[in-house]
Amino acid sequence: MANQSRLKKDIETLRHISEPCNGGVTRIGLTATYRQGVEYLKQQMQEIGLIIKEDDVGNVYGILLGKDPALPSIVSGSHLDTVRNSGAFDGIAGVVCALEAVRILKENNIQLSHSVEVLATVEEEGTHFGTVLLGSRFISGEFSEQDKDRLYNDRGNSLREVLTDYLGHRVVQPAFRAPESIKAFLELHDEQGPVLEATNIDIGIVDSIVAIQQMVITITGFAGHAGTVPMTLRQDAGVAGCLFVTELNRFILRQYADSATLTVGKFSLQPNSANCIPNQCQFTLDIRSGDAKILEDIDRYIHQQALLIQQECNTAFDINNISYKSPVVMNEALRQLIIHSCEKLNLSYRHMNSGAGHDAMIMAGVCPSAMLFVPCYKGITHHPDENVTWENMAKGTEVLFHTMIALDQS
Amino acid sequence: MANQSRLKKDIETLRHISEPCNGGVTRIGLTATYRQGVEYLKQQMQEIGLIIKEDDVGNVYGILLGKDPALPSIVSGSHLDTVRNSGAFDGIAGVVCALEAVRILKENNIQLSHSVEVLATVEEEGTHFGTVLLGSRFISGEFSEQDKDRLYNDRGNSLREVLTDYLGHRVVQPAFRAPESIKAFLELHDEQGPVLEATNIDIGIVDSIVAIQQMVITITGFAGHAGTVPMTLRQDAGVAGCLFVTELNRFILRQYADSATLTVGKFSLQPNSANCIPNQCQFTLDIRSGDAKILEDIDRYIHQQALLIQQECNTAFDINNISYKSPVVMNEALRQLIIHSCEKLNLSYRHMNSGAGHDAMIMAGVCPSAMLFVPCYKGITHHPDENVTWENMAKGTEVLFHTMIALDQS
Repeated sequence: MANQSRLKKDIETLRHISEPCNGGVTRIGLTATYRQGVEYLKQQMQEIGLIIKEDDVGNVYGILLGKDPALPSIVSGSHLDTVRNSGAFDGIAGVVCALEAVRILKENNIQLSHSVEVLATVEEEGTHFGTVLLGSRFISGEFSEQDKDRLYNDRGNSLREVLTDYLGHRVVQPAFRAPESIKAFLELHDEQGPVLEATNIDIGIVDSIVAIQQMVITITGFAGHAGTVPMTLRQDAGVAGCLFVTELNRFILRQYADSATLTVGKFSLQPNSANCIPNQCQFTLDIRSGDAKILEDIDRYIHQQALLIQQECNTAFDINNISYKSPVVMNEALRQLIIHSCEKLNLSYRHMNSGAGHDAMIMAGVCPSAMLFVPCYKGITHHPDENVTWENMAKGTEVLFHTMIALDQS
Repeated sequence: MANQSRLKKDIETLRHISEPCNGGVTRIGLTATYRQGVEYLKQQMQEIGLIIKEDDVGNVYGILLGKDPALPSIVSGSHLDTVRNSGAFDGIAGVVCALEAVRILKENNIQLSHSVEVLATVEEEGTHFGTVLLGSRFISGEFSEQDKDRLYNDRGNSLREVLTDYLGHRVVQPAFRAPESIKAFLELHDEQGPVLEATNIDIGIVDSIVAIQQMVITITGFAGHAGTVPMTLRQDAGVAGCLFVTELNRFILRQYADSATLTVGKFSLQPNSANCIPNQCQFTLDIRSGDAKILEDIDRYIHQQALLIQQECNTAFDINNISYKSPVVMNEALRQLIIHSCEKLNLSYRHMNSGAGHDAMIMAGVCPSAMLFVPCYKGITHHPDENVTWENMAKGTEVLFHTMIALDQS
């Protein structure tokens, strides 16, 4: 029932509403280009006959009124902003599919008791103000008026200044949404990982958005000439670093291959010269799991292993915790409704965690929230090659559509 | 018999003939500061009564005439230039100790049959023209007139232009030395490694200057989001690199701990972002051994291991050979003479290889050449903290002195 040509038209039109970049999409929140994207979206909402609202931080709603306007709304959507030179689906897919789900309700003359709101959040990627999930943080009340004066962009303009410019004389509603005004939040997103495609499964049911522990490890050794210090007398910080990364990676593969990820994304040596034994090695650890207890166990292993390698390589380890985010569990009842929709549609599904952060983790503080993933090409994301097939976009839309109906009756 | 105060005076005076730098010595070849260092050296040579000669690339000789000027000379020395912010001994120690050895000959009225020449070579470090061992390469004939037009410094001046300026109207001899004009070359150097100090041994007898193999390894994987790609589906170039470095290091420690070195001095990841799985890992390998066959075996292991890890980590390895220098074996008869001198002086000694390049490796193409090492503090070199005790400088000088006498009679 979902119309692949309409989904394609929305995605392809928005793909071309972009700053010039290297083959991808660059539509940073609260810029002139972003305004163009919003105006396109509003035009589509208007064609369906939705009531359009913008809030005072740039989030946009298209509302299909329910039979009983006193009931809280069913909200579905994702973000309309992108990172620089991004793909066309990250975030946008969730907005476009929610819009299409509402189109199907409308063209089938289905009026639910609850209003349905299509939501496009702003600055989820945090590219403009350096703070991710900006739009939803204002919706939840985590951010409020004073944050508009606290946050600055690279040009030295406050969020308040940029918003004044961006919103102009438009009539806007306050961003904050009282919990009692929303019945549930449903976010469709491309997986941004390779699992669904690799296992040929239609829909991912997100159980939780993972906990993230970020660390910086600094190993100090002793510099020396590559030719004159014998192997047995070395205090090679780089060798210690490589051994540590190797052991950690093996541990995760052995114990938590399916339940955690560990990534060393940055790695540097000092003095970083081909004929010098490194006196310093520094690298980042990004560790994620849906289960906070697994993170604790990994943390224990890291400290144990550091002690061992410190001794083996005669080097000093400094382990610096940079940040920790708790896991956010998605609403169980909502997950069940999504599963029922998949079953009704004969779509295959699997439970999974989201390794990336999403608006749904903020919305979970406001109302029952859940996410569904659609497969994407090779898991590529934040890259022009990001792709979701129109067929999978349609399948995701239909799951949203059926879940909205089920939710209305629950 | 060697005079520690004179050794100290020479080293400390030369230490202060430096461009401004961070606590160390910066005396780059063929600069105004280098000229000051040469003039100090010539003044000391003059006080001993040596005949002073400069050649047309800036090498300096102080000659103590032998009874038979027709006989080839015994030449001893090292380089007078430094890297930026270097220590005061690298190179300089070999010049100052040779000078002191000649002083002792002179003040003991010992006239050898052969002339003895104290040699200070120029631009051994290659800091000014980017080519190491410059002075000795002109002495050996490896470099000749046309190279003066080929080599340029950072400012775009040719070596010929810089030499015209540096030498002025001085009368100079051609740099090239006919092999029949030199009986032997003896180079004293600080070890630049920690072995002699750690094992409490006075003198290192250099058996050979090691072969050096330099490679760049590039591993290509597949980028991905740190949170969304499961561990088992990753093609993490950084993990492959760390595993490779770990395995190589273990192999060398297991098989060649005493006969080879392997150093990973540079290491980088792409895109080098904390939440991205690296799609590329690149690092250098610097592998040295006195035995070319050991290098061949290590090379074989590297290729085998790359194939294994390529498969284990689902990544592609590119192994690029950057340079290979053959080992240079020091003259056996000369080494025996140095050993006899140590025994005569009751000094402890050990055989070792030089992991660093030295003028003696070039001079070995001209005449029988040998090197002796004196211990240095913790093996620190190319750093302001480089240090050799005055006692060890004196011991080294006396070995030179006795070896010159033995050589004269051999």
